[in-house]
Amino acid sequence: MELTTVKEALAIILNNAEDFGIEEVDFLKSMGRVLKENIVADRDFPPFNRVSMDGIAFSSEAFNSGQRTFKIEGVQAAGSEQMTLQNKQHCIEAMTGAVLPNGCDVVIQYELVTIENGEATVHLDNVKFFQNIHKKGLDRGANEVLIQKNTLITSAEIGVLATVGKYKVKVAKQPKVMIVSTGNELVEVNENPAAHQIRRSNVFTLISILEKLHIKAETAHILDDKHVLQTKIEGFLNTYDVFIFSGAVSKGKFDFIPEVLDNLGVKKLFHKVKQRPGKPFWFGKKANKTVFAFPGNPVSTFVSCLKYFTPWYQKSMGVTFENSQQAILSEDFFFKPGLTYFLQVKLAQQNGKLIATPVTGKGSGDLVNLVDADAFIELPADKANFSKGEVFPVISYR
Amino acid sequence: MELTTVKEALAIILNNAEDFGIEEVDFLKSMGRVLKENIVADRDFPPFNRVSMDGIAFSSEAFNSGQRTFKIEGVQAAGSEQMTLQNKQHCIEAMTGAVLPNGCDVVIQYELVTIENGEATVHLDNVKFFQNIHKKGLDRGANEVLIQKNTLITSAEIGVLATVGKYKVKVAKQPKVMIVSTGNELVEVNENPAAHQIRRSNVFTLISILEKLHIKAETAHILDDKHVLQTKIEGFLNTYDVFIFSGAVSKGKFDFIPEVLDNLGVKKLFHKVKQRPGKPFWFGKKANKTVFAFPGNPVSTFVSCLKYFTPWYQKSMGVTFENSQQAILSEDFFFKPGLTYFLQVKLAQQNGKLIATPVTGKGSGDLVNLVDADAFIELPADKANFSKGEVFPVISYR
Repeated sequence: MELTTVKEALAIILNNAEDFGIEEVDFLKSMGRVLKENIVADRDFPPFNRVSMDGIAFSSEAFNSGQRTFKIEGVQAAGSEQMTLQNKQHCIEAMTGAVLPNGCDVVIQYELVTIENGEATVHLDNVKFFQNIHKKGLDRGANEVLIQKNTLITSAEIGVLATVGKYKVKVAKQPKVMIVSTGNELVEVNENPAAHQIRRSNVFTLISILEKLHIKAETAHILDDKHVLQTKIEGFLNTYDVFIFSGAVSKGKFDFIPEVLDNLGVKKLFHKVKQRPGKPFWFGKKANKTVFAFPGNPVSTFVSCLKYFTPWYQKSMGVTFENSQQAILSEDFFFKPGLTYFLQVKLAQQNGKLIATPVTGKGSGDLVNLVDADAFIELPADKANFSKGEVFPVISYR
Repeated sequence: MELTTVKEALAIILNNAEDFGIEEVDFLKSMGRVLKENIVADRDFPPFNRVSMDGIAFSSEAFNSGQRTFKIEGVQAAGSEQMTLQNKQHCIEAMTGAVLPNGCDVVIQYELVTIENGEATVHLDNVKFFQNIHKKGLDRGANEVLIQKNTLITSAEIGVLATVGKYKVKVAKQPKVMIVSTGNELVEVNENPAAHQIRRSNVFTLISILEKLHIKAETAHILDDKHVLQTKIEGFLNTYDVFIFSGAVSKGKFDFIPEVLDNLGVKKLFHKVKQRPGKPFWFGKKANKTVFAFPGNPVSTFVSCLKYFTPWYQKSMGVTFENSQQAILSEDFFFKPGLTYFLQVKLAQQNGKLIATPVTGKGSGDLVNLVDADAFIELPADKANFSKGEVFPVISYR
């Protein structure tokens, strides 16, 4: 059987993105979510001619006619209603963030002014019209789109949401994700494994990858019993949108997942990808349910989730998938088997370049190796010799 | 008065890092926290000679003496106790993740084997000793340190914590942070500002920056009244470890923060930094309390928090501060005032290089510009001409 290439696999997966709809959340809970409405300026930014230095505000006309000393009429504080200069030859002290007083068109900072006996003297030969004034509407006009729909919300967007008063905001709904481990060899984290057992770990790695995407996934463990698997998964199919399996997809006598999914009407879109690690990866759909069945070894599950689930999720949320990050190989590397190889690397910054140094582990089962690395670089299947200085796509997990 | 340079300011801040102690948390709640104990292998990894392919296990001695067909004695499943080969001329089917059966030292995958009438025939001329067997202790030995103390916990570490049974883990305690906005011009996000008012936004930007650091900060707003400010801050000083102020640190008539902090015994370590934006930044200490008082304009607050608070926090947590990220300027840029300039840029990846393109805003007050950019690059104060191709430190916020 011809294996699916990594490129084909990713294309199939991205073609099967799903729309989970929209929900409204408190803007402060929207970090990391994908915006589902355009955010529009509710008024001009700034909303008024805003004083941008603490100092005195006056009329440039008076200044230009030779006047340097201005009687102080009052103080325009930030948060106070706009004052009006009563006499064109006078000035008003004006604070950063305040409305420019009516009748004034220049602000000169205190550093360039002497104040004595209620009069301010400006030590300048020239002033500019609207000096130290952030003009109403200069940044953005009312009704202008400030944040486009489908933007991933970060701290920068949070500030803008606040400033336009969007205390409730429409974001893409998260899928309901069920992460299932199988394997009779697995015991819980707080248990002591017997000699032939190990603790569950993949599901927790997956939970934490999804946590970074602000998805609260649920998890279950099912023993290697075909009947039990089928019954439990059937139940889950009614409740969850997305399934991530870890294990039981290869050629073993207890690798029931493909058969059970088939029995339950989940259509296989591919099984086995031309990659290492993670070759036995199975992917399928049943209506709008999406099933990622990754092989059980820890590094396979880890890299496959990052390589396939993450972009599927991003496309489903409506953000354009752009894993354009690339890194430069720091030393020659050889890999013969004709599979795309996800090589574990340590990343370093050098003069604006991202350098990837291979961290050679002891095989794809070596979970601990992940701790010593930062990322995977993706070495194409059609080559065996990879040279120092060549550039490859990188999937970073730190 | 000589301004503090950016380098001096950062050095003073890092010299004033604080240790907030250690707490134990559920391992699944430890994402993004800093580990405060070495994580040690509780046993060998793998803990047994682990079968790494589904296939048949047999003795290489039998194979090497010419035998190719082996009677199948049984199946060694993952999670089952170790079986023993009863007859050296036989084999046992063995599954990925299973213990290697006693008496076997080779596993050959099903793909290279024909099974008929209870006998397996191997289609190979040679086999290697321990082929397809992940040897006990090969990855790591019992008692070996797997994760060093002071590591930032990511998904990679979560898997290792699970596998060694660390369901409770020691991490650095988070500081209690109070974020205070001042300014009579500010109204709440769900309110309609009058013509001279604007909504609070900086505190929410700050909350969301801290949220990314897994700090749940609290926030308060205090009007520009010296007495009220002093009373409230005095109370907060009893409860919180760290204060981030936004506003009221410059030369305005209502910029009471420096005076109030002085009255309360908070020692000023510097006031005013040779930078744009964010020049009026005030930093001080009272015993183990740390006060960052940033100027109130949104971009100043934003970049100052990333440039100063984040490394202070990281050092306080015990992780080494390494903002080594750099980017390459994509076009010439000119900035004369003799201040370190935090220039807003859009980042792009090109062949393993990080390219920064200036996004010129309308001044430091332009909050919305942050949405169009990804990062700041730090242009040094002692130059005015910055050339295409030059490399500068970058502070990314996406």
